[in-house]
Amino acid sequence: MARTAGELAEYLQAKLEGDAAVRISSVASPESAASEDLIYIEQEKFRERAQASKALCIIAPPAIEFTGKTVLRTAAPKLAFAKASAWLTPPVPVPAEIHPSAVISASAKIGERVAIGPFAVVEDGAVIAAHTQIDAYCFIGARASIGQHCHLYPRVTLYAGVRIGARVIVNSGVVIGGDGFGYVFGDGKQWKFPQVGGVEIGDDVEIGCGTTIDRGSLGTTRIGTGVKIDNLVQIGHNAEIGEHTVIAAQTGISGSCRIGRKVILAGQVGIAEHCTLEDGVVAGGQAGVPSGKTIRAGEVVWGTPARPLARFKEEYAWISQLPAIGKRLRKSAT
Amino acid sequence: MARTAGELAEYLQAKLEGDAAVRISSVASPESAASEDLIYIEQEKFRERAQASKALCIIAPPAIEFTGKTVLRTAAPKLAFAKASAWLTPPVPVPAEIHPSAVISASAKIGERVAIGPFAVVEDGAVIAAHTQIDAYCFIGARASIGQHCHLYPRVTLYAGVRIGARVIVNSGVVIGGDGFGYVFGDGKQWKFPQVGGVEIGDDVEIGCGTTIDRGSLGTTRIGTGVKIDNLVQIGHNAEIGEHTVIAAQTGISGSCRIGRKVILAGQVGIAEHCTLEDGVVAGGQAGVPSGKTIRAGEVVWGTPARPLARFKEEYAWISQLPAIGKRLRKSAT
Amino acid sequence: MARTAGELAEYLQAKLEGDAAVRISSVASPESAASEDLIYIEQEKFRERAQASKALCIIAPPAIEFTGKTVLRTAAPKLAFAKASAWLTPPVPVPAEIHPSAVISASAKIGERVAIGPFAVVEDGAVIAAHTQIDAYCFIGARASIGQHCHLYPRVTLYAGVRIGARVIVNSGVVIGGDGFGYVFGDGKQWKFPQVGGVEIGDDVEIGCGTTIDRGSLGTTRIGTGVKIDNLVQIGHNAEIGEHTVIAAQTGISGSCRIGRKVILAGQVGIAEHCTLEDGVVAGGQAGVPSGKTIRAGEVVWGTPARPLARFKEEYAWISQLPAIGKRLRKSAT
Repeated sequence: MARTAGELAEYLQAKLEGDAAVRISSVASPESAASEDLIYIEQEKFRERAQASKALCIIAPPAIEFTGKTVLRTAAPKLAFAKASAWLTPPVPVPAEIHPSAVISASAKIGERVAIGPFAVVEDGAVIAAHTQIDAYCFIGARASIGQHCHLYPRVTLYAGVRIGARVIVNSGVVIGGDGFGYVFGDGKQWKFPQVGGVEIGDDVEIGCGTTIDRGSLGTTRIGTGVKIDNLVQIGHNAEIGEHTVIAAQTGISGSCRIGRKVILAGQVGIAEHCTLEDGVVAGGQAGVPSGKTIRAGEVVWGTPARPLARFKEEYAWISQLPAIGKRLRKSAT
Repeated sequence: MARTAGELAEYLQAKLEGDAAVRISSVASPESAASEDLIYIEQEKFRERAQASKALCIIAPPAIEFTGKTVLRTAAPKLAFAKASAWLTPPVPVPAEIHPSAVISASAKIGERVAIGPFAVVEDGAVIAAHTQIDAYCFIGARASIGQHCHLYPRVTLYAGVRIGARVIVNSGVVIGGDGFGYVFGDGKQWKFPQVGGVEIGDDVEIGCGTTIDRGSLGTTRIGTGVKIDNLVQIGHNAEIGEHTVIAAQTGISGSCRIGRKVILAGQVGIAEHCTLEDGVVAGGQAGVPSGKTIRAGEVVWGTPARPLARFKEEYAWISQLPAIGKRLRKSAT
Repeated sequence: MARTAGELAEYLQAKLEGDAAVRISSVASPESAASEDLIYIEQEKFRERAQASKALCIIAPPAIEFTGKTVLRTAAPKLAFAKASAWLTPPVPVPAEIHPSAVISASAKIGERVAIGPFAVVEDGAVIAAHTQIDAYCFIGARASIGQHCHLYPRVTLYAGVRIGARVIVNSGVVIGGDGFGYVFGDGKQWKFPQVGGVEIGDDVEIGCGTTIDRGSLGTTRIGTGVKIDNLVQIGHNAEIGEHTVIAAQTGISGSCRIGRKVILAGQVGIAEHCTLEDGVVAGGQAGVPSGKTIRAGEVVWGTPARPLARFKEEYAWISQLPAIGKRLRKSAT
């Protein structure tokens, strides 16, 4: 929906310089932008790219100057750009149609203005709230429930009983509610520990392609409100993830972990079972947290076993000097 | 199916204390248990939780005392609990119906009491043995075969010719039999090495969500009886996994590896091609085994490159002291 | 299609020894070969296996001698074998049928001799070029386009607008075009950065099972001609992968990375955002490249943080000696 730069400045509470009547219809990169696209800049070194863009309106920090552009000034241009994008390009609701090929149990409860795509399966007692979009091949197991205004992309699998909040986005290939991985060895074989718990996913969660979230064994696996999960992430049985935590691709969180609020886990992080990461912890890419460990609130950790970043850097600097130190030692020993 | 504590004690060969007539219908955690649920305890420190539970019957080791409970005494409560769970809550057979939407080749052989869900596809010459449950969207490629009493959750893919034993559980999103990853560079491009082998999966195997198992290139990829594989695991072409081995989430096993019996691979382990892990090896989380290595029977390894745990700990302890040692060295050098 | 050893020698430009009229119909391992199968050998130590094979024709390097076999001599037997395999066993085109259960938009453009399997969905404005095979459950989003002679195995998902070249093979479970993972934190929550770019995949690309490739945020994610990608790989938004690069299983490439031509990434490699790997770089298994790094053309790197292999080996050798060095230091300090 096209807006004016003036309307956008007001929405963002940004200071406007230039023509408030400039029309803005979408967002783009400086290179691909047309005149009505909004662009943003954060660093002086990219000024040329932005100035050369066809875009007429640009979100910029106070210090960077442009000629012939309408500029929205803010201290946090990228954040303002993300907000502007959501404001300018709200999700287009698909027609609230249920494809005739979908197989929907008579005992499922389907809310108003729900869209269900081809070959979807909705089993007994499942509940899909109003305004939710269920794409092709989605499998909604028995008694699973999905809140309002969710979007399940094609090929999402919810095992029986999984519960999902409102405004949740689930990408293709995600599987929620598979049995947790627990066995007890005895009499020459592995005995399956019961995996009969549930999964509860809060509001405003987003889950990337191919991610798997297991059901609790006896308890419940919980994903807090606002959590963002990237592609191919594994979350084990009974894990609990606090609100607004961000988990990058291919990270694995083992069973019974407690991950706090606003934690950031980079890509390929591995967290062994029964760990606690308190609020605001940041774990660098490929960090590994050994079983049962606690990482204190706000700590930034790196490496395997995960340790404070400053410590990791210091140790790593010394490792880099080992060949030189070693030679010196060898010399002094002779 | 409800049983009595007495029947359960007999099944488990546990010593019963208290009322043998107490009814038990399912398993639960101490917190969520109702009176007829069975609970277990292994450590004294959790006694309060167990005592406070509504559960009337508890599996416990010899030393922990309770009041007002029926107690089943055993040296291995968690194992007994897993056995009790399987005994109390056998899988409920779904009705042996074939959904009318399933597309089944006339040349496929479907055994007695097989259930096939909506939109399943069974191709030419495939064989599905009796009492097996094939859920929605399962794709059973040409000439693939599946043993008795298996359960394929929704959205399992078997490429042509894959063979699966009896009582195998395969979770959603699993792909078995994709082409292995092998190329030979020449004339400025990658040439595909032929990937025309098979996959054979033994009895009582369990495979987690989203796991991928490639077909052999010229030979066969083999998963032994009783192997348990977690979510998002990758198993390369021609790998062989011995009986009762356990593989945690996101582990990758490269082509032509030989993994022994009762091996335990923690999460995110990486094993390069042509490695041998003998029986009973344990590899810690994120361990990496370089190409062509052999790990001897029973060794516990850690780190990348994987080395014996004791060695890893000793080296890591010294790395932790490097900053202090380094400063001392620097001082002594001046 | 059966050929003679003489025809194959001519195709491979190999020197023939023995009977040029020997018929060859397929490829196999020495153990499984029948008389008409072609086998190959590269190392003297496997001579016995090859000599004992039922295969009558063998590709071998100059120095290894056989009795009673027709031998095709070449300096690169494995490469010749791969070429021979492609020549002997071209993909069998499936009948160009469109399964009646497929849901195909009236505005989609389907080329000549396209095969579409059961329950496929092709959305508005999608384009599928001639001779392409789309298997069961493939989802071709709106305006997506697929070149000639591609094969999408069952259960491939293309989000709207994804573009794929010619002769591309995509395995089951692959998801291309999901939203990239980008958020900006503000006002107590994560704001989604716009993910409105595209994905362009070149010719002759092969993509393994379960791999995920995200769309660009504002720009385009690009996979070059001839790139080979293994299973469960993650490729982030706006990444660019150069021609003929090979990426092994479970590797993750973060947003905005530039990967050069003929790069080799082993399994479980992690590359943080905004890295550049120049042409011909090789990264060992589980290597981790920190955010923003550049690896120069042709370098071989290992470890996390990734460093030149020689350096890694030297450092690791010293780490192995730390316990001994440390004890000496301790002694000299007392």
